[in-house]
Amino acid sequence: MNNRKIPISVWAPFAGDVALRTGDRTLPLKRAEDGWWHLAEGLLPDTDYAFFTDGRGPFPDPRSMRLPNGVQGPSRTVDHGAFKWHDSGWRAPPLSSGVIYELHTGTFTEKATFDGVIERLDYLCDLGITHIELMPVNSFSGTRGWGYDGVGLFAPQESYGGPEGLKRLVDACHGRGIAVLLDVVYNHLGPEGNYLEHFGPYFAGHYRSPWGDAVNLDGPYSHEVRRFFIDNALMWLSDYHLDGLRIDAVHALVDTSAIHFLEELSAAVRRLEAETGRPLVLIAESDLNDPRVVTPTEANGMGIDAQWSDDFHHAVHAVVTGEQGGYYADFGRMEDIARACTEVFVYGGRYSAFRKRVHGRPVEKLSGSRFLCYIQNHDQIGNRAGGERIGHLADPGRIRAAAALVFFAPFVPMIFQGEEWGATTPFFYFTDHADESLGKAVREGRAREFAAFGWNPEDLVDPQAQETFARSTLKWKEADHEPHHATLRWYRDLIALRKTRACLKDGRLDRTTARFNETARWIAISRGELLLVCNFGQKEQCIPVKSASTATLLLWSPEAPVIKPSAILLPANAAAIISRKER
Amino acid sequence: MNNRKIPISVWAPFAGDVALRTGDRTLPLKRAEDGWWHLAEGLLPDTDYAFFTDGRGPFPDPRSMRLPNGVQGPSRTVDHGAFKWHDSGWRAPPLSSGVIYELHTGTFTEKATFDGVIERLDYLCDLGITHIELMPVNSFSGTRGWGYDGVGLFAPQESYGGPEGLKRLVDACHGRGIAVLLDVVYNHLGPEGNYLEHFGPYFAGHYRSPWGDAVNLDGPYSHEVRRFFIDNALMWLSDYHLDGLRIDAVHALVDTSAIHFLEELSAAVRRLEAETGRPLVLIAESDLNDPRVVTPTEANGMGIDAQWSDDFHHAVHAVVTGEQGGYYADFGRMEDIARACTEVFVYGGRYSAFRKRVHGRPVEKLSGSRFLCYIQNHDQIGNRAGGERIGHLADPGRIRAAAALVFFAPFVPMIFQGEEWGATTPFFYFTDHADESLGKAVREGRAREFAAFGWNPEDLVDPQAQETFARSTLKWKEADHEPHHATLRWYRDLIALRKTRACLKDGRLDRTTARFNETARWIAISRGELLLVCNFGQKEQCIPVKSASTATLLLWSPEAPVIKPSAILLPANAAAIISRKER
Repeated sequence: MNNRKIPISVWAPFAGDVALRTGDRTLPLKRAEDGWWHLAEGLLPDTDYAFFTDGRGPFPDPRSMRLPNGVQGPSRTVDHGAFKWHDSGWRAPPLSSGVIYELHTGTFTEKATFDGVIERLDYLCDLGITHIELMPVNSFSGTRGWGYDGVGLFAPQESYGGPEGLKRLVDACHGRGIAVLLDVVYNHLGPEGNYLEHFGPYFAGHYRSPWGDAVNLDGPYSHEVRRFFIDNALMWLSDYHLDGLRIDAVHALVDTSAIHFLEELSAAVRRLEAETGRPLVLIAESDLNDPRVVTPTEANGMGIDAQWSDDFHHAVHAVVTGEQGGYYADFGRMEDIARACTEVFVYGGRYSAFRKRVHGRPVEKLSGSRFLCYIQNHDQIGNRAGGERIGHLADPGRIRAAAALVFFAPFVPMIFQGEEWGATTPFFYFTDHADESLGKAVREGRAREFAAFGWNPEDLVDPQAQETFARSTLKWKEADHEPHHATLRWYRDLIALRKTRACLKDGRLDRTTARFNETARWIAISRGELLLVCNFGQKEQCIPVKSASTATLLLWSPEAPVIKPSAILLPANAAAIISRKER
Repeated sequence: MNNRKIPISVWAPFAGDVALRTGDRTLPLKRAEDGWWHLAEGLLPDTDYAFFTDGRGPFPDPRSMRLPNGVQGPSRTVDHGAFKWHDSGWRAPPLSSGVIYELHTGTFTEKATFDGVIERLDYLCDLGITHIELMPVNSFSGTRGWGYDGVGLFAPQESYGGPEGLKRLVDACHGRGIAVLLDVVYNHLGPEGNYLEHFGPYFAGHYRSPWGDAVNLDGPYSHEVRRFFIDNALMWLSDYHLDGLRIDAVHALVDTSAIHFLEELSAAVRRLEAETGRPLVLIAESDLNDPRVVTPTEANGMGIDAQWSDDFHHAVHAVVTGEQGGYYADFGRMEDIARACTEVFVYGGRYSAFRKRVHGRPVEKLSGSRFLCYIQNHDQIGNRAGGERIGHLADPGRIRAAAALVFFAPFVPMIFQGEEWGATTPFFYFTDHADESLGKAVREGRAREFAAFGWNPEDLVDPQAQETFARSTLKWKEADHEPHHATLRWYRDLIALRKTRACLKDGRLDRTTARFNETARWIAISRGELLLVCNFGQKEQCIPVKSASTATLLLWSPEAPVIKPSAILLPANAAAIISRKER
């Protein structure tokens, strides 16, 4: 029996009265000067409770450690000291030489739990993965969801396995040498189960986010709102031994403070890193194309370690699929891929026709290791009406050539669950809101959005349907069969090559060059002694690149290319990695 | 007769049709690819015209060069090449050794014109002023106004003397060695005479400013909106030979672009500086306490030359007057003055009780010359219900001691018109809206605002009344009589001392130290070999500072202080500047 008392406190600066109900007891909290309320004695571990503010309630604790009955139910205390970790001395591998695997706990396995993920860790090890990145596991409404509409930010989703399940997963990963990154959402909270307004001014009236009220990062009381999110980050890194966080949509964190929220967050994480001696990373999703996000604070940046590079994705996707709708209108040239590989941002201070404005600024003096590259992620698949993976949209050879770009580029490569075998399952947007009017609003919102792309509402899947979730679950047996297994081998080989060649991991943009032919649609990327040649044209062509005669390292091609000292004859939809020096 | 044609173009990206009416002729404009419309041939100088977009109008040109009949009337072409300048070879003195004089053209003299200002330039020269800073002269509604609700941003207010009048003033200033700075407002436009919405998306829907729609600096088409304001800045500096701009309320320029508007503006001004060889300065009014505004772009700053330091003002004002209402609640300690003089921001990353949040960040590695200090400006006087100058609020001796702080501090000193002789005239907020419902709204808004401070509406002046404006006009005869003349001599002496002592102009924060006694309320500021001692206490006191025995340089005191090697006996409400070295 664990008798350690868990302290209970809550910030409610405008409340005249805060009480807590546990079982049939109602206990008053005492107000401190700073707007915080404290329970005189803590609660025992695994105790359920809920708050009442000024007589209204019951509301779950904004910092619920566990929500065993979902986001509308009571909070349950957790003794984080009780879990038996086996990862003492664990140190995460550096991101710069990492290979990241993004996964959604609910659809990664049929089990739809953290324990389900554990069963696949040996497979991920074998593939060469160094970091897994979990889509949000904060508590969200229902049992099916991407997690970006989370409300219980401090409580791992119960249907995934709750606090214990997440700890078991992290511990198991560390046991296999895999680091764990977690996607966290600090720009808004979900609509269902969101009772924060009963506690304090968490939301700003002066900005709007695309997904609801923007979070109050620079108005009155913002110091406590910032603390709420920073404490959340520190909790994941401390109590759950996570190795880093991926911060969702930082462009929606509107903050005019002299010290931006991200800078304050990164400073807090740096302090924790120094205290624990564990390397910790912060990765931003940013639509700003602003290198300041990943510039060190010493150089007046925000101090985030790395960010996703959507420009790389869009550049490659538009060429591989030929799509030109929406934001792909800004891409489609071989030049765009070349820029993405050498300059990072295709739009680094240029006019974007899609955005109808000048976008971004050039990357200068930053390592390529500060950017993640990928040809698939949850958004780029799931935000399509049909949830199509790139494999549904283009020739397999072209996709494998695109994958070669991912692992050859001077960035940190990331793949999305099942990408490595060309999974046939879609990845839909799915929800499980209890409030059917909210479900209806989501359905209608998406119908409107996709009507602009010519979709009829009846052809769209219903995000609220169980089936939409079920169809998104990976079918692992696919991986054992061709052509999937060949794709898997290709990914394994690409990862293995990257791991063994220093020039592929050095992040040196200044040592990455690209040559291409816009009409013929080939591109050659050079890094150190290695050369990647991709033929995205419609037929075999002779690509004028210098190489050693005998040095084809990796090849995706229906036929072997003919390599001459000054050219390579490469079939359409093929890629070759060759050495420019004789061994 | 000047036959030079003035080109006419207008940006109207959504218009299907743009025409211009001049006299009884209607001329169509031709659309270019980029949303701009061009008149085939220009118009002769001094031609009146107005635009029609999609049949609606007439509207003045958003870039009207002159609005001879006010903001609702037609635009008039101006040939900027026609004015005869006499300032060839003019180079403005550096801001770091400058003394700035803020003035409002309408109330500076009875004439209420640019020509009226010219008549007082010899006086300003004699006082030691190096820069005048004009409150906004862009066209605003009516003939009386502060100018911050301007709408004709490219047309100097006609009632002040229009384009010719402003050029005469700048030319006359340069002839006397005085540089001219102009206050420009880029965060919003005024409500009356604002037809920009008929031309393009100048305003953002996603942010709100305190004064109306925020300007669209980061949404679709923002590149043209930014160009509108940057072209405006360049026009003042080029066509009007202005030496710099003071940019109003940059905290209301909400811009999440990777290249902030201010950085783009500063880069454009740097280019013009390089082209012309004339030193040009940009000064920001910023409520952000963010040193990044005045950090060079090379260090990831915004590249603005200097900014106003309201913390200095508030720190000194609260001590001198004892006021603790509103934002003065955050000030009032001697320590605040000490911090303001040595660290610039009193709130440089600390919790502000008034703002109810953490505010600002510390200033590091910046010269004090990047900050302007003052104990009075148009806002701090005019935004009070009674328009009281500091002279209406405190003992004259205390104010003169405060003035010594202004000229002794490691910043660029600025004074507000009439401050130098302790003018008795208030400086009210005044307007002259043609639309009486708008006038009523202004009146009622201010009544509401000041009701919180205990003011009855009947005790407030009417901003719309002619008398409110008239009462704000300086009475120059005051300056010839005591006690005003003594105050004027004190300011002259302080300015003269600053000009002759290098240590006062070096901007070295690291060589500025402050000692104070919170209870006794004295403060001693040391800069190089000089020491300023101020007694803000209620009685004479012995202040323990080391000084040379014979070296009182400047003194404001009813009686001479007794100076000992290790202390100075200084009466209440007195200040002494002494040398720490024997000559």
